[in-house]
Amino acid sequence: MSDTVKLTLDEIRNLSLSILTKSGFGPEHAAAIADVLTTCQVDDCQSHGLFRLFMCNDTMKTGKIDGHVAPALAPSDNAIVRVDARGGMSLLAFRETLPVLIEKTRTHGIAAMAINRCFHFSALWPEVESLSSEGLAAMAMVPSHSWVAPAGGTRGSLGTNPLAFSWPRQGKDPFTFDFATSAFARGEIELYHRAGKPLPEGVAIDKYGNPTTDPQTAMEGAMLTFGSYKGSALSIMIELLAGPLIDDLTSLESMEFAEGQGGAPYHGEIILAFDPAQFSGGRAAANDERAERLFADIVDQGARLPSQRRFAARAHNTARGHVEIAKTLYEDLLVLAE
Amino acid sequence: MSDTVKLTLDEIRNLSLSILTKSGFGPEHAAAIADVLTTCQVDDCQSHGLFRLFMCNDTMKTGKIDGHVAPALAPSDNAIVRVDARGGMSLLAFRETLPVLIEKTRTHGIAAMAINRCFHFSALWPEVESLSSEGLAAMAMVPSHSWVAPAGGTRGSLGTNPLAFSWPRQGKDPFTFDFATSAFARGEIELYHRAGKPLPEGVAIDKYGNPTTDPQTAMEGAMLTFGSYKGSALSIMIELLAGPLIDDLTSLESMEFAEGQGGAPYHGEIILAFDPAQFSGGRAAANDERAERLFADIVDQGARLPSQRRFAARAHNTARGHVEIAKTLYEDLLVLAE
Repeated sequence: MSDTVKLTLDEIRNLSLSILTKSGFGPEHAAAIADVLTTCQVDDCQSHGLFRLFMCNDTMKTGKIDGHVAPALAPSDNAIVRVDARGGMSLLAFRETLPVLIEKTRTHGIAAMAINRCFHFSALWPEVESLSSEGLAAMAMVPSHSWVAPAGGTRGSLGTNPLAFSWPRQGKDPFTFDFATSAFARGEIELYHRAGKPLPEGVAIDKYGNPTTDPQTAMEGAMLTFGSYKGSALSIMIELLAGPLIDDLTSLESMEFAEGQGGAPYHGEIILAFDPAQFSGGRAAANDERAERLFADIVDQGARLPSQRRFAARAHNTARGHVEIAKTLYEDLLVLAE
Repeated sequence: MSDTVKLTLDEIRNLSLSILTKSGFGPEHAAAIADVLTTCQVDDCQSHGLFRLFMCNDTMKTGKIDGHVAPALAPSDNAIVRVDARGGMSLLAFRETLPVLIEKTRTHGIAAMAINRCFHFSALWPEVESLSSEGLAAMAMVPSHSWVAPAGGTRGSLGTNPLAFSWPRQGKDPFTFDFATSAFARGEIELYHRAGKPLPEGVAIDKYGNPTTDPQTAMEGAMLTFGSYKGSALSIMIELLAGPLIDDLTSLESMEFAEGQGGAPYHGEIILAFDPAQFSGGRAAANDERAERLFADIVDQGARLPSQRRFAARAHNTARGHVEIAKTLYEDLLVLAE
């Protein structure tokens, strides 16, 4: 990066806190959001780090989000943790309920968290990694807005619907992925538009359902899923599990709820957690070796495991005690903080 | 089909039973297998119907499978059903344990079945549909043999690793998909080879890791996953959840176990089940409508839901009381039955 600014972890967090507080988030929500933004920024995950403060601010401006509301955990004796975010941002609901999900997973072997009625803007990998750091495997899914056409379709029905997964590794960074089931991220199309560059083939259609590589035409039309009809099927599964299964909105409904006002989408989220000790009948250590042999076979042939670049950034930034962000981003953030 | 033979459901099942019995399967295993083959054949699912009797026979010839062994269910009070197939075919273990999985799902809200030490040749959709027909959502995953290279790799590490999902619909066929995470099915490459046709781009690499469209070169090299690095990540997740998580083999280990002898791969399987009544807090009916609205939006724009062709075949074949199969297949099967 040519023009960058160095920020320590405390500086990232404090800058986030002051912007979030000024935007109208109460101290609990601001802390939960600032911690996740810091986690993302330490990994040089630019798209979901400090940059997202603009979206947090925009979301508050819509007047639909409650910046102070306390999430409500529904009591249960089964393996499902249901937490109602009550119209607040998702992250506080996740943070407060995570210990219950961990406990239920250790009790039942498999458990799920359903977060309802939340605004959602964040990467899913910090959440699945907060479970793998406890020795549990985890999967997370959310809908978004109906910008994405199903395979063979002509208009948006599905969200960008990310799927994240993390697998704990002894003494190593976990195996983690977090990808959108759309072929492109929504923000990428915006970047191509600003740069005046054509899109690759196969990522978008125009409003009549015909393929397009023009970013503006794509934004008026719909995005496509990755992996053709298989990616499309997976995206529909995510709609169902993170929507109707848990009594929450589909991407179509979330889009309607937003009334074109922008900000973070409002919907639910589902997180599944698996206890290797119980699934393996107490042979988790032997099976860790089995998984490590697979990872070694992948890496030995020159392939990358997902998230390796992110873990390298984490190690580098943690060791030097600071991150670097674009000076233009920093200056724009200072305006928000004023 | 030009030259076909008509078979009633009883005829399919009886032909299967006699071939399986002659191959060396005991009555319980033969019945479990014959029922699934019949289910597949009624849906005109040719690749996993009667055609699979050759693989069942080949598997018995390897001398590694036990055709008479009774699966052993491990007692548990958590949400995991662990059943040891003890070196038999997977289907009897699934059939005998399904009522326990259903009961655990209704008790805990979410539950999982881990089938260990099984030979596996079958489609996953009959299994997830046996849960959706009970009003539960379900997901199933298995590894296979390490024919598939990870994204950016040069050799096989991963299996064709199918993922299946089914969602119950009131008074309608369920929403079901069942796809390999490889770009092509293994059998498809064989068909291209026999037909002397080149493969599409992007489905296989040669033994040096270079792209190839030659079927023979592809079979000596490796297949690729669908959807590039996203499909590859998903395939690795399936290895982990259906392998090391449940104390069972990866596709690499399954390939080694087979010692090049052919027949069905030997490994584990994981099935997850979700109770919409509990996940939705008792509002499953309202959420069914929400899901139906999504399906309608997909179909209304001319896109297909997965499995629609299969359900149409089911309705057609059930109404007329018979299926049609290729005469050549029928004649080859009669040889096996003699």
